[in-house]
Amino acid sequence: MELKPIVPIEIKKNMLVNDLVLAMKNIGVMGAGRIGEAADIFTKMIQDKECTVFLGAAGALIPGGQRELLISILEKKWIDVFVCTGATLTHDLIEALGHNHYQGHHLIDDNELNKKGIDRIYDSFMKNDVYADLEKFFNENDFTGEYNIKEFLWKIGYFTKKRSILKICYEKKIPIFCPGISDSGIGLMVWNQLNKNKKIKVDVFNDLKEILDIAWTCKKAGVFYLGGGLPKNFIQQAMQFSPKDGASYGIQITTDRPESGGSSGAELREGISWGKLNEKARFIDVICDVTIALPLIINAVIDRIEP
Amino acid sequence: MELKPIVPIEIKKNMLVNDLVLAMKNIGVMGAGRIGEAADIFTKMIQDKECTVFLGAAGALIPGGQRELLISILEKKWIDVFVCTGATLTHDLIEALGHNHYQGHHLIDDNELNKKGIDRIYDSFMKNDVYADLEKFFNENDFTGEYNIKEFLWKIGYFTKKRSILKICYEKKIPIFCPGISDSGIGLMVWNQLNKNKKIKVDVFNDLKEILDIAWTCKKAGVFYLGGGLPKNFIQQAMQFSPKDGASYGIQITTDRPESGGSSGAELREGISWGKLNEKARFIDVICDVTIALPLIINAVIDRIEP
Amino acid sequence: MELKPIVPIEIKKNMLVNDLVLAMKNIGVMGAGRIGEAADIFTKMIQDKECTVFLGAAGALIPGGQRELLISILEKKWIDVFVCTGATLTHDLIEALGHNHYQGHHLIDDNELNKKGIDRIYDSFMKNDVYADLEKFFNENDFTGEYNIKEFLWKIGYFTKKRSILKICYEKKIPIFCPGISDSGIGLMVWNQLNKNKKIKVDVFNDLKEILDIAWTCKKAGVFYLGGGLPKNFIQQAMQFSPKDGASYGIQITTDRPESGGSSGAELREGISWGKLNEKARFIDVICDVTIALPLIINAVIDRIEP
Amino acid sequence: MELKPIVPIEIKKNMLVNDLVLAMKNIGVMGAGRIGEAADIFTKMIQDKECTVFLGAAGALIPGGQRELLISILEKKWIDVFVCTGATLTHDLIEALGHNHYQGHHLIDDNELNKKGIDRIYDSFMKNDVYADLEKFFNENDFTGEYNIKEFLWKIGYFTKKRSILKICYEKKIPIFCPGISDSGIGLMVWNQLNKNKKIKVDVFNDLKEILDIAWTCKKAGVFYLGGGLPKNFIQQAMQFSPKDGASYGIQITTDRPESGGSSGAELREGISWGKLNEKARFIDVICDVTIALPLIINAVIDRIEP
Repeated sequence: MELKPIVPIEIKKNMLVNDLVLAMKNIGVMGAGRIGEAADIFTKMIQDKECTVFLGAAGALIPGGQRELLISILEKKWIDVFVCTGATLTHDLIEALGHNHYQGHHLIDDNELNKKGIDRIYDSFMKNDVYADLEKFFNENDFTGEYNIKEFLWKIGYFTKKRSILKICYEKKIPIFCPGISDSGIGLMVWNQLNKNKKIKVDVFNDLKEILDIAWTCKKAGVFYLGGGLPKNFIQQAMQFSPKDGASYGIQITTDRPESGGSSGAELREGISWGKLNEKARFIDVICDVTIALPLIINAVIDRIEP
Repeated sequence: MELKPIVPIEIKKNMLVNDLVLAMKNIGVMGAGRIGEAADIFTKMIQDKECTVFLGAAGALIPGGQRELLISILEKKWIDVFVCTGATLTHDLIEALGHNHYQGHHLIDDNELNKKGIDRIYDSFMKNDVYADLEKFFNENDFTGEYNIKEFLWKIGYFTKKRSILKICYEKKIPIFCPGISDSGIGLMVWNQLNKNKKIKVDVFNDLKEILDIAWTCKKAGVFYLGGGLPKNFIQQAMQFSPKDGASYGIQITTDRPESGGSSGAELREGISWGKLNEKARFIDVICDVTIALPLIINAVIDRIEP
Repeated sequence: MELKPIVPIEIKKNMLVNDLVLAMKNIGVMGAGRIGEAADIFTKMIQDKECTVFLGAAGALIPGGQRELLISILEKKWIDVFVCTGATLTHDLIEALGHNHYQGHHLIDDNELNKKGIDRIYDSFMKNDVYADLEKFFNENDFTGEYNIKEFLWKIGYFTKKRSILKICYEKKIPIFCPGISDSGIGLMVWNQLNKNKKIKVDVFNDLKEILDIAWTCKKAGVFYLGGGLPKNFIQQAMQFSPKDGASYGIQITTDRPESGGSSGAELREGISWGKLNEKARFIDVICDVTIALPLIINAVIDRIEP
Repeated sequence: MELKPIVPIEIKKNMLVNDLVLAMKNIGVMGAGRIGEAADIFTKMIQDKECTVFLGAAGALIPGGQRELLISILEKKWIDVFVCTGATLTHDLIEALGHNHYQGHHLIDDNELNKKGIDRIYDSFMKNDVYADLEKFFNENDFTGEYNIKEFLWKIGYFTKKRSILKICYEKKIPIFCPGISDSGIGLMVWNQLNKNKKIKVDVFNDLKEILDIAWTCKKAGVFYLGGGLPKNFIQQAMQFSPKDGASYGIQITTDRPESGGSSGAELREGISWGKLNEKARFIDVICDVTIALPLIINAVIDRIEP
């Protein structure tokens, strides 16, 4: 049995993020080693011309300061298919309308916040009055029509003026899926329009065909999950139809535990039994807060992809 | 400051579950104490005639042996509104069609399982050929029509012959919401029907009005979350419209951590800032595997409710 | 591949704890199933006449209401060797001197508590003035002498009047090890005696021989870990010297994760590589709060052991 | 209520680690923000001439590639008092004797490893034959004498030839405490010497006075915890005796949860109730794998301290 020694990480002045991530790789797959491996795999996914990259994004990514990174990697076309929660799109639209998320704290009197019109998302805050502007946006732009969810989201992107996830996906024609869209501020805005007798019909099953077709026709698939939830599971479901018995590359970043049996915390290797992940796929489970791991990975990969 | 001593739990022969749960309460809100408090709160929710109980269910509950408990509490009408994931309904339908989930293990060669046609859900197994029977069920029953999601799910319940969550909800007219239905085996079956040119149209936003109306018109709301995910968030969203500035009772059972900022692990008190939980609500976060906590709570509550 | 179906847990009036734990076993090794398996294994450990049972106890067990259960299983001689932290023995002695731990809450102003002389242990409280009584106890009883740690702990047990872990271990001559004793309130009391020029000499390595001898000479070993920390690691270290290439039975209850690589969260099977656990041992990792899992297991086992 | 917007982290070529950590700070205290805050606090601790810095180190730090960072910050005298587990010192000595830890994997047959003489520490490996060299080291150097634990550890450092934690602490006269030393490979070596009738007497309580004196006489204290366990608790215990009602600065990096009530996962603010942390202290709980967080913090701080 030939063994590779663990090379300790060193202290170094003016160290580059990419150099630190490369050093992390040399400790094996303990903690930081998984960040190192994820950076290698994501680089491969992007450089492999045959690979269609599916990104699933769940959790408080935008309050957690990851919006610019997400927009950037969509803009650079590192991502081919984007699946996310309704909350992420609502947060994105709120910022596109000129609002912010704010630095807050979780040890605070929530009742006081409520009186001040502030909504708490763990350690971040959002002003409740953003909903008035959201409503104005939906009043001022005409959403009547019949859609599938993807078409409806591109329509929002079409009406969005500022740089945002929704606008980039529309402009670059990146397929964006959000099966749980009714579970979000955007959902509430549609409900509000329906109450005003606006005719907006959005079919829940129609764009399922589209993601399954992308999975079916791609040469190779790569999956990248930020958190779990519906986005991960929806991509995993499509992977059953991908060539090569599932994805060829896989990365997931989550702190959810596998033991409950839920999809969010399920280890990627479980997907091999389902044919969602190829038995020879290169994949890694990064057990870390996304807000820590993602900037490390993305800012290491940029140095490798665009030298 | 008057302080209440912690009363140690004792060893006792032939101890009843309810007596153990009562004893747990006396250690305060440390670990087991939260189980004790949850049993008290759930008892209150059921006994409070003014309270409408919303149950959100996510995660591998049916592979985790919780199906009978869920059916029983729906049957007893302890639950007024049921929200869950597509996976839970698919697992339910699979068992209603006569199939089982099986005792497995997570330390196993997933590639071997794949070759044997076995899908792994952490420590449980499912035979892949259940999908053939699912397909047959959707072929043999006529689902053509235009629905909202709730109506569509009741339709499945209508066609289901054996005791199941879907059937009980249909028969007892319990509103059942599943915004992410396309992300499931049932979703795949509908896609299959659409491929055969069956006309099935299911609107994603239409039944949002219904859950919001229930929240809006109820006298008091109680929320009970098994895991997080979309079911929790969808009920939380509705709570903003409930009377009394949010729910009056709350229980959540999850091992997801709050720090990522995602809705799944968010502490219930966070909802106070949003007006999703009343500042004076009685609520508890149980940090435990649902398969351990739920049977304890339910089998303690039955002794109190039906003496 | 023959598969065993998962049997759902049922709702039942007047259910016995033992019946619930038996039912938990039938869902496999998902969550609750591990509690079921642990109860079976602990029963075996006790009934196997050849087996020497080592219990390692770490964490806030006494503030968490587990003191009576611990005393009872020591009293019944279900445990042959007891290893714990200094904090647990300090909490035990505090209660033996007539003080209590109190029901508190973690969302509280710690500065206010400090002013009131209350120390917080997560959701439980302790009055700071217990230290005055501890000091009195050490002033009034003569501890001068030369000991190893075990002898010193038995001496405390000898002077202790009320039913307690320390007293039971002394009276029943149960070897009790606490390598980190200086890291505790008891440690501070000794330091205080040393300041008064009392001659108390306690050797740190001397009783290592004793636990290694017990491990070396026993016919079979069974290990039971409540939390991780030093108690688990100290027993694991001894297991390397036990017959049959390590322990024949193993149970651990912890919510610590394995990924950091620390001993506390390490899965039991890791011990096989070290020769700390026999490759054919029957063992289970219970991933649960000890205050929930331990009363379930103990109150199930009593019905099986003493019918 | 004035609110500070969250500034998203950007993608940037050739980004410096320090610039990324500074950017992390601007998302508030969500995930990555805590890394940013910890780097600020550690910089302050070092730059504050009045501050005595106590480092507590637990967990698989050396197999996790953190040895060089630890040696470096001891060498630079950023740390005034070092407390750790016996395992860390054993791993350090093993590497000082010329051995390595190796890159491994946790999904492996532990029985095969056992047959090959390889011990597994989660995802890292160690060759079992290192113990032969450890034994040789203890045979060849004369450890007879009477010590407290700190003196005994300095003696090991005195005999150690290669750069190591033990040697640096000895050479720089950095007080090193390890109350649980008997729970380690070093402990086993002493037991072996005792079996050969070597007279080695090490008192367990004697150096408690020393750490309490350092705490008592310092002007200000800063605490930095890598993992929890005995090292954290031992420093926390000493903080009760520090001026200013506890430490003035605090950082802890752990993924242990607070809910079990154990010291390892306890939030730093809990220490305020005990007088272990000053109510006005600047402190942060970093919820992250140490192998990820520590290199980020240290390699950011070096750019600030040594410009």
